[in-house]
Amino acid sequence: MNAPTALSHLTPSIALRDVPQALLDALKTRFGEQCSTALAVRTQHGRDESSFDAPPPAAVVFAECTQDVADAVKLAGEHSVPVIPFGVGSSLEGHLLAVQGGISIDVSRMNRVLSVHAEDLTVTVQPGVTRKQLNDEIKSTGLFFPIDPGADASIGGMTATRASGTNAVRYGTMRENVLALEVVTASGEVIRTGTRAKKSSAGYDLTRLLVGSEGTLGVVTEITLRLYPLPEAVSAAICSFPSIEAAVRTVIEIIQLGVPIARVELIDVNTVRMVNAYSKLSLREEPMLLMEFHGSPAGVKEQAETVQELASDHGGKAFEWASTPEERTRLWTARHNSYFAAVQSRPGCRAISTDTCVPISRLADCLLESVAEADASGIPYFLVGHVGDGNFHFGYLLDPDVPEERVTAEKLNHALVARALALGGTCTGEHGVGLHKMGFLVDETGAGAIDMMRTIKRALDPKNIMNPGKIFSL
Amino acid sequence: MNAPTALSHLTPSIALRDVPQALLDALKTRFGEQCSTALAVRTQHGRDESSFDAPPPAAVVFAECTQDVADAVKLAGEHSVPVIPFGVGSSLEGHLLAVQGGISIDVSRMNRVLSVHAEDLTVTVQPGVTRKQLNDEIKSTGLFFPIDPGADASIGGMTATRASGTNAVRYGTMRENVLALEVVTASGEVIRTGTRAKKSSAGYDLTRLLVGSEGTLGVVTEITLRLYPLPEAVSAAICSFPSIEAAVRTVIEIIQLGVPIARVELIDVNTVRMVNAYSKLSLREEPMLLMEFHGSPAGVKEQAETVQELASDHGGKAFEWASTPEERTRLWTARHNSYFAAVQSRPGCRAISTDTCVPISRLADCLLESVAEADASGIPYFLVGHVGDGNFHFGYLLDPDVPEERVTAEKLNHALVARALALGGTCTGEHGVGLHKMGFLVDETGAGAIDMMRTIKRALDPKNIMNPGKIFSL
Repeated sequence: MNAPTALSHLTPSIALRDVPQALLDALKTRFGEQCSTALAVRTQHGRDESSFDAPPPAAVVFAECTQDVADAVKLAGEHSVPVIPFGVGSSLEGHLLAVQGGISIDVSRMNRVLSVHAEDLTVTVQPGVTRKQLNDEIKSTGLFFPIDPGADASIGGMTATRASGTNAVRYGTMRENVLALEVVTASGEVIRTGTRAKKSSAGYDLTRLLVGSEGTLGVVTEITLRLYPLPEAVSAAICSFPSIEAAVRTVIEIIQLGVPIARVELIDVNTVRMVNAYSKLSLREEPMLLMEFHGSPAGVKEQAETVQELASDHGGKAFEWASTPEERTRLWTARHNSYFAAVQSRPGCRAISTDTCVPISRLADCLLESVAEADASGIPYFLVGHVGDGNFHFGYLLDPDVPEERVTAEKLNHALVARALALGGTCTGEHGVGLHKMGFLVDETGAGAIDMMRTIKRALDPKNIMNPGKIFSL
Repeated sequence: MNAPTALSHLTPSIALRDVPQALLDALKTRFGEQCSTALAVRTQHGRDESSFDAPPPAAVVFAECTQDVADAVKLAGEHSVPVIPFGVGSSLEGHLLAVQGGISIDVSRMNRVLSVHAEDLTVTVQPGVTRKQLNDEIKSTGLFFPIDPGADASIGGMTATRASGTNAVRYGTMRENVLALEVVTASGEVIRTGTRAKKSSAGYDLTRLLVGSEGTLGVVTEITLRLYPLPEAVSAAICSFPSIEAAVRTVIEIIQLGVPIARVELIDVNTVRMVNAYSKLSLREEPMLLMEFHGSPAGVKEQAETVQELASDHGGKAFEWASTPEERTRLWTARHNSYFAAVQSRPGCRAISTDTCVPISRLADCLLESVAEADASGIPYFLVGHVGDGNFHFGYLLDPDVPEERVTAEKLNHALVARALALGGTCTGEHGVGLHKMGFLVDETGAGAIDMMRTIKRALDPKNIMNPGKIFSL
């Protein structure tokens, strides 16, 4: 890999297609007040949490049902105009940017939990339901949905990016937890994939092809998810370590031993300092692991004892335990606030966030070299991670008015991804490819697999209208 | 659904394509002794464990490396001749039959475990490695690979059919346990999908598109799998119940409570009788659950106590426990021998085996009605199931010389699948579609999803040479 690949990511490739007035008229006729061309609305739908800019979409359709989505896609298709699905706008990789122009289909009004099958541990929702809303609505069932990306993302967006989060080490990601979909295809047809059965060998796994396809193969209009019984007992702990290496070695052993830990998060010393300043805390200024254990009371106790022993072997100390929800929330404050604390630590900065994931045994190597490089660069950064999965986030905090900082941050990012790939890992554990990682994806998977993706995309979306310009160039 | 759909499955549609002598000559030149056109060899490669017949392939290539597979596919492609991958021949659904003629690519000599990464809980194997061979070869690592279809199937075949087995309730299926693949595509190119990282959001999930694609999109030449630490403690139990319903209600509660049971298998009273006769045992002639618990000693004890309580509430009695490997093997004899015991119970019979899977709460309804229908038909049958997943097997034992019995068995099968689909289930939990369930797949997924599968197939295999005529018609 060479530097130019990375640096070409600095600016997305913009190639606007014409959005004819006839389409805008047709959308107005079909959707009335549900369609907006107001600049403020378009601007809000033309950006996400990435650090990219692009012109806003030409119109926003607020879909209220599957038929709305199908009709919007059909009308756009007649004019070969791109459509970009929009949930809550929390994408980190430029997924929502109208880099080829087109219209945004906002599904946030499709926010109903359609059916809860508590007895089967499944639920079916519309794509605009957010993860917190879902857990609120099913609270009385004694079940929960564990996937928790940082933002209160929409389930549709989480499906599109194959999201995960802190609980994935125990409960898997959207890959393992989406059972079935309803999808509007590029031709505006409504299809269904999968069933509510827990497993199936019935033909191509279209569900998992669509999960993580970032809106490029269809717009998801219904999602059936797995749920889990709320654990009988939950216990949380924080623990400080003399070095990142000691913390990571502890995690590696926890995973290799098969301890069914529910969460295990790393926060580096930089980030602990930022959190202390932001939240007026006095946490030990050392690398820290935050852990959570789910199970029966005896099971949780046993897991905790095993982990405490492993941690002590690596110099882990200052264990703090919590078992009530309030105490747990307090302990996890550092983790919950880390992003805001980091961004606040350098007023006016923008964060470039990475999310590489490596095989667990390579985690220490990957992290330590990246920390050394980041320290040497002088760019402030934070480091947190879902380390039980081998997944972690560097956030480089750069001054947007100093272009050299962005170049340096991108170089650090590039070196980090190259390192993760060389160690058998992936360029993105949970954020998706979007605009930012298109070059890295080629490095990771090779031209042959990208060609297969392109062939599938061309076959299923011959006019290239479904969120074009993302994942790979066409 | 109506009867004609089902009955059309009785005979596969045979439409042989020409296999020109020029191809056979080219294969002989390239492969020498590795290519056979002997009738005995072709016949062995032209059948599987299904009850279908078709003419054998025109030649068999014994591939010894990925390049062999690529070259065979390229040569076949030049003549638009079908290629059918062959592992150990244990498919149950006609996957291996040359219904459009062509050549068989036998990968059984590609049987090396290529790399064990015990520290990452992953292994990479060639497709001809069988599941038992794999577990033998990694025994010293303290890890195991849990997926266990009835046969000692090849990992390549298990990948192609998205196989599972008795451990899937705890450890998932091939869907959850294949991390990465090397695949020869229809053009003879070698591509790689996935990495050894535990999770990824890097582009389309080609790995899971290929898992379960039954050789119709490519020939798998390398598979990277997840492994698991051998549990510290294992305990097994059998328990008898006054009725199937009581047994199934117990299982439903075990799953709903989130007990991490490793195996929970049902054997109906018919099958218990067959096993008693076959293995000279004196098991109580009542429906039976066989269970296995994995974990720490305390965890296993706790799971066992919870399950025993649930079982007792439903009249479960005559618990027998085993914790040494020898005792466990003895207890599980009934399950291991059930297929052979059943087939032996009616000398000369052929078994038509189903593998529907339903959401767990619908399991009792689905099973009880199917049992009543089977009892009323007079056709002997056995019934076993991976009931923790909502997955079960009826095996109708028919006299091949009495065509009416086959018709009756297919009608029972048809009614059973229709019932499972109506209850939100799938027509195949683990055997795949092959030839037998093509009609059921349409009923299950609808024309829209089948069209999407067809579009993908046409795009990736424009000459339709990769195991054509399986999963869907083209």
